[in-house]
Amino acid sequence: MPVDDLFLRACRGERTERVPVWFMRQAGRSLPEYRALREKHSILDMCRTPELAAEVTLQPVRRLGVDAAILFSDIVVPLEAAGIELDISPGIGPVIEKPIRSGDDVGRIGDLAPDGIEHVNQAVRILVDELEVPLIGFGGAPFTLASYLIEGGPSKNHILTKTMMLSEPSLWAALMERLADIVLVHLRGQITAGASAIQLFDSWAGALEPADYERFVLPAVARILDGLADTGVPTILFGVGTATLLELMASAGPSVMGIDWHVPLESARVRLGTMPVQGNLDPAALMAPPEVLDPKVHAVLDAGRGRGHIFNLGHGVLPETDPDALQRVVDTVHAWQPDE
Amino acid sequence: MPVDDLFLRACRGERTERVPVWFMRQAGRSLPEYRALREKHSILDMCRTPELAAEVTLQPVRRLGVDAAILFSDIVVPLEAAGIELDISPGIGPVIEKPIRSGDDVGRIGDLAPDGIEHVNQAVRILVDELEVPLIGFGGAPFTLASYLIEGGPSKNHILTKTMMLSEPSLWAALMERLADIVLVHLRGQITAGASAIQLFDSWAGALEPADYERFVLPAVARILDGLADTGVPTILFGVGTATLLELMASAGPSVMGIDWHVPLESARVRLGTMPVQGNLDPAALMAPPEVLDPKVHAVLDAGRGRGHIFNLGHGVLPETDPDALQRVVDTVHAWQPDE
Repeated sequence: MPVDDLFLRACRGERTERVPVWFMRQAGRSLPEYRALREKHSILDMCRTPELAAEVTLQPVRRLGVDAAILFSDIVVPLEAAGIELDISPGIGPVIEKPIRSGDDVGRIGDLAPDGIEHVNQAVRILVDELEVPLIGFGGAPFTLASYLIEGGPSKNHILTKTMMLSEPSLWAALMERLADIVLVHLRGQITAGASAIQLFDSWAGALEPADYERFVLPAVARILDGLADTGVPTILFGVGTATLLELMASAGPSVMGIDWHVPLESARVRLGTMPVQGNLDPAALMAPPEVLDPKVHAVLDAGRGRGHIFNLGHGVLPETDPDALQRVVDTVHAWQPDE
Repeated sequence: MPVDDLFLRACRGERTERVPVWFMRQAGRSLPEYRALREKHSILDMCRTPELAAEVTLQPVRRLGVDAAILFSDIVVPLEAAGIELDISPGIGPVIEKPIRSGDDVGRIGDLAPDGIEHVNQAVRILVDELEVPLIGFGGAPFTLASYLIEGGPSKNHILTKTMMLSEPSLWAALMERLADIVLVHLRGQITAGASAIQLFDSWAGALEPADYERFVLPAVARILDGLADTGVPTILFGVGTATLLELMASAGPSVMGIDWHVPLESARVRLGTMPVQGNLDPAALMAPPEVLDPKVHAVLDAGRGRGHIFNLGHGVLPETDPDALQRVVDTVHAWQPDE
């Protein structure tokens, strides 16, 4: 991927002649061509089969003309590769057969091979050959992975997770470190295979108060980002509901902070200084008619000022989204020019 | 209730010799005496029967010695009284038989009698006779009520709600106004019957970006709070995930802002100036051992500085909470003294 690629320049904080745009969950249920494939394959099968993962990754790039692809995967894929038995249950999410709740359980988590997960790396290689835009590698951050592992599935209040975190700090630290190392190997594998950037999803980090995030989670995120530094690829860190965590998350060392829709992008820019930002249209705004949607897209663009700004939603594309609305956003972003 | 009551003085922003404490959802599933009653009665039956609502309201006051009672109710109670058919489904929440999605649907929402809901007022009267601490009246704010009405039940993404809000602004405004008027009558009834304060729960407001909250929701909240101003009772406004909405919510005119656990109380104080605050221990902290719990309680107390601070959790008591942990928090709060 040429270093003067639009998306990569925005990740480096540069002013860009137009604003790059991609969407979290752009490969997914909002696209009929994805749903057609999903009828024949489970999510895990699609993640495990390089040709399918690549095809699903390509679908939104072909249809929408977004400026980056993101590897189709699930954050639990490296956990499965590390020996954790799990499934992705339709309409629920990842389900862990034997949750991790003790030191013995943590001991059950295995290693990844030094090169990461071969079927993932192979999908990356196929994509890098096909794509004319950068491929973003995909990983989950340790707190979010730990929550799935400990709760046994998606959780509203993360009670067991927080209980371990607060009550058994050394067990917790061991688990965080273990997960950080697995994620790091997984992401380095994707980079070696050709990924041009990485997005690290800490989907549930927003469940934490800042003091707990700083003490119990930040070190593991920093461990991953530090471990990627020598690769030179940009890293994007994102979680939803993280309005009070942004500065702390930024201090973990990502190149770009992903901003959810609760935080006005203008205010994120003030708080984060010159750090590039990605975001942050409310995904529900895509249900609104053009006369409402367009000004909302423009408001985000205006706040981004065309410098170090990657346009995205403030969370994943909702499955109910009309692909034409996604197309409209792409076209609006591409037509917009910074003022001066 | 004497005007020099501890809780009411804290609501007025005064320095208090000790910090008053109560818990959102203190009447509820964490208490065995509540679960015993729940085995015999549905939630709606308990809300509808003054003696049961009063008994459940009293349980945590008797057991824990908290400094305020909050009326046991559900935010959908006034909707039922306004003619909306609904049920509260165990483990799910309110379910609306025929969701509100059109102008005709909004027309189906009836009025409350000028004095509010008699069975609720009667529960308040029983409680005011029995209680030696203030009774906080209970209501839901219009956005949260609208979300239940439009989605037909609890919702993760509030898509239909936001779609109506963004796509049909005059229908939305009519619905907000209608709901504000119902809630206002409901709350005035509770005050006339003897409630000493009001808490308005905007549980789902945190789903909105600030610009949408300001335009589509704030006016209806202000309409309720303005309509209570002549009563002189303190009002507390609370929603979870509202870190980026605090100043806007405060501008609606509550006496006290409820703060969730994501926002360090210190930072809320800086942002809100002299406005009294309520909160904000992470409810999950009650699962931690005393050596972890106590410093967290102290950190909240230190940030509150014993002036205009009502100690509470940053969200409702989790059903899994051990009542002894609640007792420990009450005792810790009561033993604490501000520094100077």
